[in-house]
Amino acid sequence: MAPRNSSRNLRVLLDMDGVLADFEGQFLKRFREKYPHDPFVPLDERSGFYVTKQYYALGQDIGTKAFGIYEEKGFFLDLQPIDGAIEAAREMAEMEGVDVYICTSPIKKYTHCVVEKYQWLDKHLGKEWMERMILTRDKTVINGDLLIDDKPNITGGMNPPKWQHVLFTSYHNRDVVLQDGQIRLDGWLPHSRWRDILEQKRQEISEQ
Amino acid sequence: MAPRNSSRNLRVLLDMDGVLADFEGQFLKRFREKYPHDPFVPLDERSGFYVTKQYYALGQDIGTKAFGIYEEKGFFLDLQPIDGAIEAAREMAEMEGVDVYICTSPIKKYTHCVVEKYQWLDKHLGKEWMERMILTRDKTVINGDLLIDDKPNITGGMNPPKWQHVLFTSYHNRDVVLQDGQIRLDGWLPHSRWRDILEQKRQEISEQ
Repeated sequence: MAPRNSSRNLRVLLDMDGVLADFEGQFLKRFREKYPHDPFVPLDERSGFYVTKQYYALGQDIGTKAFGIYEEKGFFLDLQPIDGAIEAAREMAEMEGVDVYICTSPIKKYTHCVVEKYQWLDKHLGKEWMERMILTRDKTVINGDLLIDDKPNITGGMNPPKWQHVLFTSYHNRDVVLQDGQIRLDGWLPHSRWRDILEQKRQEISEQ
Repeated sequence: MAPRNSSRNLRVLLDMDGVLADFEGQFLKRFREKYPHDPFVPLDERSGFYVTKQYYALGQDIGTKAFGIYEEKGFFLDLQPIDGAIEAAREMAEMEGVDVYICTSPIKKYTHCVVEKYQWLDKHLGKEWMERMILTRDKTVINGDLLIDDKPNITGGMNPPKWQHVLFTSYHNRDVVLQDGQIRLDGWLPHSRWRDILEQKRQEISEQ
């Protein structure tokens, strides 16, 4: 019988927007500050991954205004960390046998977004986290064991991907029914299941 | 006997600096323009992956000046395409059954570099190429079949990586002895072996 390959590290991919950084909260705050007289979507009425889609449903001009919000300079840099995310990321990165990567998709208007994603990581987790950063529009080709991401359907060039998808709960995905293989994580705060999920996956890969 | 899984696409990862973009040529040009009275390393005396290391050997101050060259605004955006690279990338991306990704590592001082890498791609290949872009300091976790890269030793969290390394010839790696599994590609110009390399790999994966 072949020896168990228990020596390799568990690779965890962490999404940024909606998992580490509060994209939804910041978007709503900025939209209401900039357009106080326009209709908006309260957080508990958010549904669907793309926030702009819901704003376009309120009117073509509202959708266009919504798009402009996160294309502005400073939007991505100023995102607030999600409660407990920074502490969880630090703890995870210090775990023996765990390799943590940040796996994030820039928006199409990349001018401010790409550099601000690096700056955000620098500001909240430190310069050395740049070594963990992966910017990609196709997450399926990243070879992790777990991808913690708030987007329900993640598709791309590799089907199926190597990772198991941990759907991180957000306002927009609360009612989404999990697909085969997906598991849910409700947050980072104390008593969060994230450590159990990592431990379970670590056991699975050590048995392969 | 299981049917051959011949339906999946071949994934080719293309490095930018030294493979698509002429980092070495631009570096030397800029260094000589800025420091005409300082010693420099002619292209045919380049050895070792890191250009600054060779400049530090000429003196601490020369090394510091060299470092500053590619940290300047505009350096990455202004890189000239390597002969035939743009045409080869376009042809490859249009091949049936081939998925092309750009797989590039930003320098640690990311301020100008990350956005300029996107701008460069936009300028030379078009906005739609952003969908193919992967910025990462660890290329081992990208799940490609071939990585065409001028860096001789590519290490990271995944050992061995999934891809086969095609060492793209550059001044600094001309004399490097290939390691197990590596193959060499001498350029993109007519009669380049790149199509044969892709075809060979495609056959390998269809037989798996």
